[in-house]
Amino acid sequence: MSVYLHDIPLDQAQARLSAALEEAGLDGVLGDEQIPLNVEAVGRLLAKPVWAKISSPHYHAAAMDGFAVRAVETNEARQTAPVNLAVGEQAQYVDTGDLLPEGYNAVIMIENVEPLDEQGGITTEVRQPARIRIRESVTPWQHVRALGEDMIATQLVLPAGHVLSRPVDLGAIAGSGHDSVIVSRKPRVAVIPTGTELVEIGSQVKPGDILEYNSLVLAAQVEQWGGTAQRHAIVPDQLEEIQAVVRQAAEDSDLVLLNAGSSAGAEDFSAKVVASLGTLLVHGVAVRPGHPVILGMIKSGEDRWVPVIGVPGYPVSAALTGEIFVEPLLARWLGRIPHQPEVIEAELTRKITSPGGDDDYQRVVVGKVGERVLAAPLPRGAGVISSLVRADGLAVIPRGSQGESAGTKVKVRLYRSRAEIERTILAIGSHDLTLDLMAQFLSQSNRRLTSANAGSLGGLVALRRGEAHLAGSHLLDPATGEYNLAYLPEYLPGRAVRVIGLVGRQQGLLVRKWNPKAIHSLEDLAREDVTYVNRQRGAGTRVLLDYHLDLLGIEAQRVHGYAQEEFTHLTVGAAVASGRADCGMGIAAAAAALELDFIPLFEERYDLIVPQEYYASELLAPLWELLDRPDFREAVLALPGYNTDVMNKTIAVVE
Amino acid sequence: MSVYLHDIPLDQAQARLSAALEEAGLDGVLGDEQIPLNVEAVGRLLAKPVWAKISSPHYHAAAMDGFAVRAVETNEARQTAPVNLAVGEQAQYVDTGDLLPEGYNAVIMIENVEPLDEQGGITTEVRQPARIRIRESVTPWQHVRALGEDMIATQLVLPAGHVLSRPVDLGAIAGSGHDSVIVSRKPRVAVIPTGTELVEIGSQVKPGDILEYNSLVLAAQVEQWGGTAQRHAIVPDQLEEIQAVVRQAAEDSDLVLLNAGSSAGAEDFSAKVVASLGTLLVHGVAVRPGHPVILGMIKSGEDRWVPVIGVPGYPVSAALTGEIFVEPLLARWLGRIPHQPEVIEAELTRKITSPGGDDDYQRVVVGKVGERVLAAPLPRGAGVISSLVRADGLAVIPRGSQGESAGTKVKVRLYRSRAEIERTILAIGSHDLTLDLMAQFLSQSNRRLTSANAGSLGGLVALRRGEAHLAGSHLLDPATGEYNLAYLPEYLPGRAVRVIGLVGRQQGLLVRKWNPKAIHSLEDLAREDVTYVNRQRGAGTRVLLDYHLDLLGIEAQRVHGYAQEEFTHLTVGAAVASGRADCGMGIAAAAAALELDFIPLFEERYDLIVPQEYYASELLAPLWELLDRPDFREAVLALPGYNTDVMNKTIAVVE
Repeated sequence: MSVYLHDIPLDQAQARLSAALEEAGLDGVLGDEQIPLNVEAVGRLLAKPVWAKISSPHYHAAAMDGFAVRAVETNEARQTAPVNLAVGEQAQYVDTGDLLPEGYNAVIMIENVEPLDEQGGITTEVRQPARIRIRESVTPWQHVRALGEDMIATQLVLPAGHVLSRPVDLGAIAGSGHDSVIVSRKPRVAVIPTGTELVEIGSQVKPGDILEYNSLVLAAQVEQWGGTAQRHAIVPDQLEEIQAVVRQAAEDSDLVLLNAGSSAGAEDFSAKVVASLGTLLVHGVAVRPGHPVILGMIKSGEDRWVPVIGVPGYPVSAALTGEIFVEPLLARWLGRIPHQPEVIEAELTRKITSPGGDDDYQRVVVGKVGERVLAAPLPRGAGVISSLVRADGLAVIPRGSQGESAGTKVKVRLYRSRAEIERTILAIGSHDLTLDLMAQFLSQSNRRLTSANAGSLGGLVALRRGEAHLAGSHLLDPATGEYNLAYLPEYLPGRAVRVIGLVGRQQGLLVRKWNPKAIHSLEDLAREDVTYVNRQRGAGTRVLLDYHLDLLGIEAQRVHGYAQEEFTHLTVGAAVASGRADCGMGIAAAAAALELDFIPLFEERYDLIVPQEYYASELLAPLWELLDRPDFREAVLALPGYNTDVMNKTIAVVE
Repeated sequence: MSVYLHDIPLDQAQARLSAALEEAGLDGVLGDEQIPLNVEAVGRLLAKPVWAKISSPHYHAAAMDGFAVRAVETNEARQTAPVNLAVGEQAQYVDTGDLLPEGYNAVIMIENVEPLDEQGGITTEVRQPARIRIRESVTPWQHVRALGEDMIATQLVLPAGHVLSRPVDLGAIAGSGHDSVIVSRKPRVAVIPTGTELVEIGSQVKPGDILEYNSLVLAAQVEQWGGTAQRHAIVPDQLEEIQAVVRQAAEDSDLVLLNAGSSAGAEDFSAKVVASLGTLLVHGVAVRPGHPVILGMIKSGEDRWVPVIGVPGYPVSAALTGEIFVEPLLARWLGRIPHQPEVIEAELTRKITSPGGDDDYQRVVVGKVGERVLAAPLPRGAGVISSLVRADGLAVIPRGSQGESAGTKVKVRLYRSRAEIERTILAIGSHDLTLDLMAQFLSQSNRRLTSANAGSLGGLVALRRGEAHLAGSHLLDPATGEYNLAYLPEYLPGRAVRVIGLVGRQQGLLVRKWNPKAIHSLEDLAREDVTYVNRQRGAGTRVLLDYHLDLLGIEAQRVHGYAQEEFTHLTVGAAVASGRADCGMGIAAAAAALELDFIPLFEERYDLIVPQEYYASELLAPLWELLDRPDFREAVLALPGYNTDVMNKTIAVVE
């Protein structure tokens, strides 16, 4: 048997699995169980419809505190011509909820009754007076909740397949006479992580170790979708050991998820394991990310087959495999329809290139700027789980397409609600740590701040294109020594914007701890033994570097690593920390964060550039409030090399 | 102290509670706790931001199986001019995920390498050949996942206040080096049902008993909103007993919900209890339903105050009190923003009258018919929990408005997603039990069938107004003995519709078991000792009755109870079962459902009237499939007095 990958289209893969499930009698609801009607029932799925056992109300009930009467005996009552009714014969006191006594058909509110004693005088005995005097007639069934007003015995309360997602569902079921419900049994799913290189989360890691958290994500997915997950301990890459664990897990489970080892490498045993224990249906599905998916059926005892899904090891692939294969399977077994994410149409902010052979799931950030809904593609790497966390949705580029150009409208399957999208502030531009703090604080003010790092000039370009609400920028004008203002006429011609000061911060050189190469100034960048890591073109830090190199008369080609570009201060710091470079220019805070040494060189100003229409918008209002908050400023000042002298000051208004 | 109700506006009530919470130091997050990072963490709320402890990857990792190389040494490689690299010195085998060995900066995929032996011949030793031959140069960092590519140590992974709603959130936290998270502590909420008339759910009920399920609904709400609920046993209406239970509960709780007894009746002790144990802040809020709400603070030990909410007893009021008061309070204590339901604009299908003094929460069904989004008001009664289950949302008519007329656009706070609304089939017209079965079956075909009972003519009127996708109708034409067709030119002039047969069914008289009044034919309706319960004007059954009364020469005013109108067969049956009437006209199934006797009189046809554009729509396609399904027909035939001879037959096509 070949274990080599051969990708087939998604629909074919799903059809093969469906056919195998059908053959094994596993294509419908797995079974049901009766559970007590308590808070645990929320989220469960009705396997049987709920028909009302009793009516609600189950008797004619007084809807007010007052007196039960016969409507016909009140017909003559007028304000000026009251009618007296004898208590006991013609009227009877009732509290709200009491049974309407036999022979009565209406209730008069206690407030509309004058209680009389035997002599016809007003009495304080409100419940048992001799008579009552009334001055208004009542209609039959007034202030009576008639039997079955809410629900009638035998009527359908909730259909099978209904998810008990709302607490009031439980109330309606209880009110119709039940104290238990019959729900679909939860599918049991075994999640087995395999890999000799894996270590438990929270471990001290050394190079080569991989933190095993796919089983956590998969298990949480399974539980969220209505199943029960059984997480197994990490199994090393040993064929026999994996076989044994899978065989054992299949006995107690409805589905086995075998994580990693699904590719075609030397230690990728999943396909072999599946083939040896049953039937390998599919090895490789044309979806990206996630293509080395395995689908198979394992034989577990007489006539019992258990599906197994070989889930790829990269975390993004693993999570998407859950969404694409596990969720619909659990839905089928539970008897509900698969999740249907909300779909929104959005404009791509940049080109996506797709492999033509795969259905391509591109993670995107979605935001609404003015009237346009925009989708900004996130980094592609299947290992980048942070991109999945940041993603607001998936743009699906179907097989056969080579991609989509910037400005194209694509359909995005949303992870968040439209409401969340609409309260998202999109910041594109230069990166600053203050933006993280802003996101942090704003999340408590009903705003989401999403920032994309494109450098200062990139931010201005995004503003011009109408793709951001604001841009962070620290562009030095070599002619004046002033920041940002000189760039506005060229990059945002004719646009009314406001320049708001954010922070002053120190720029300098990031070097390894103890400065082993003894780097002290920009002149050292020209040294043969020094490798530099640069920021991308358009970044304020790059402009600063080029300006000073020019002043010093150092040509760019003399700087080793000048062509090595990173997009943020932190990634520059990481390059230095890892030894990929000896130094890079950046802010003091990045050095402190990564335990690097810092050679201070300049202080610069970092501003927010905001189009006037957004500056005055409700969306951004909480941001301006935030910038004046003492606790926020304190948090910024705690960053090394930062001052808040200009924070929330209007530097310029361009009309 | 007065316990009389004095309603104040909602915002004032909330402000009073807020001020009292602030004074007691209870206006912010209650506290936090560290919990392990496992599936139980899903849904919890970060009390502290998560900053990355380690970078991800935490080392330069090979992204492919292959050989680590130095990019510069591959520069000369061409298809026609291969380069050989010595394994051990210039190249080193790596598996995906392995640490990139010191001094190397790129990976060549194994597929692009020719392994050579000492003699320069191709060898089968792929991992430890003597040399490798390559025919393409590589760029630095090709197929390497650089340290920090995903996340860099110290960066913000997720902000405080973030709800861990997605499994991938857990993955990102684990990947950044954590195995626990600090989340907001769950607020503890005591739910205390009071009332001597209350009985546990599932009990055999006798008249006057009330099934106690508010505590279930409130507890489920609390858990859904992130709290922990403690349901107490039912407490009888005894002031001292309630005081004791509340005092005890306050000691272990952050919030006490005291259910019922919040009105101003003789046995409504809640306000007294609150006042005696602390401060009564509010008794009565101008919201409808739900106005007898109590807000107060109870003193529980030195300097410890516990808020208490007196929740009204009617189930709809209770559930809405949860939404209006409890949810925002829990949100504040957890540090998240309160739920913001999706709001949709919809056209009212009929007038709503509001009490001008209250914020009025009108439950509505929402559907999309053609391009119009419609909101159909549901029954108002605060006891009608089925209306809350059926509701798709709440139309809020603010204080000061006396209501809104039909056709007005109102804002509806949705309970369901827009996607669910868009797959909703709206049926308005005559009621038939088959509609319940259709709803039941369709829920498994990704459709929701919502039916409103308006009688056959009401259904045709709704179709003309464009307020329904289809109408059920069984209107006899006295002139021809045919059903429905004669009414179309008058009620749907110029409209292209299709008339689809649904069922044939028996109509007759519903009488109590054993037919105590010996009713045998329509002639008996004229008897002095017989009370009839009628269907509303426009109902097919009403047309049938009037036609036959006419034939028999019986005038309507001679029929006792002729003016007593019900809207469905089941409510007619319920009126007979409860003794409110001696007989009513309806279908055999309603008699069977309510254990009544049935006097068969006529067989009639019940059709679906469907505008052509909806008949051919994707929305309705599953319905037509359903009508041909044998299991569905079997379920219909199991209803007494039904046949499926005409089911899904086209009776007429009107162009």
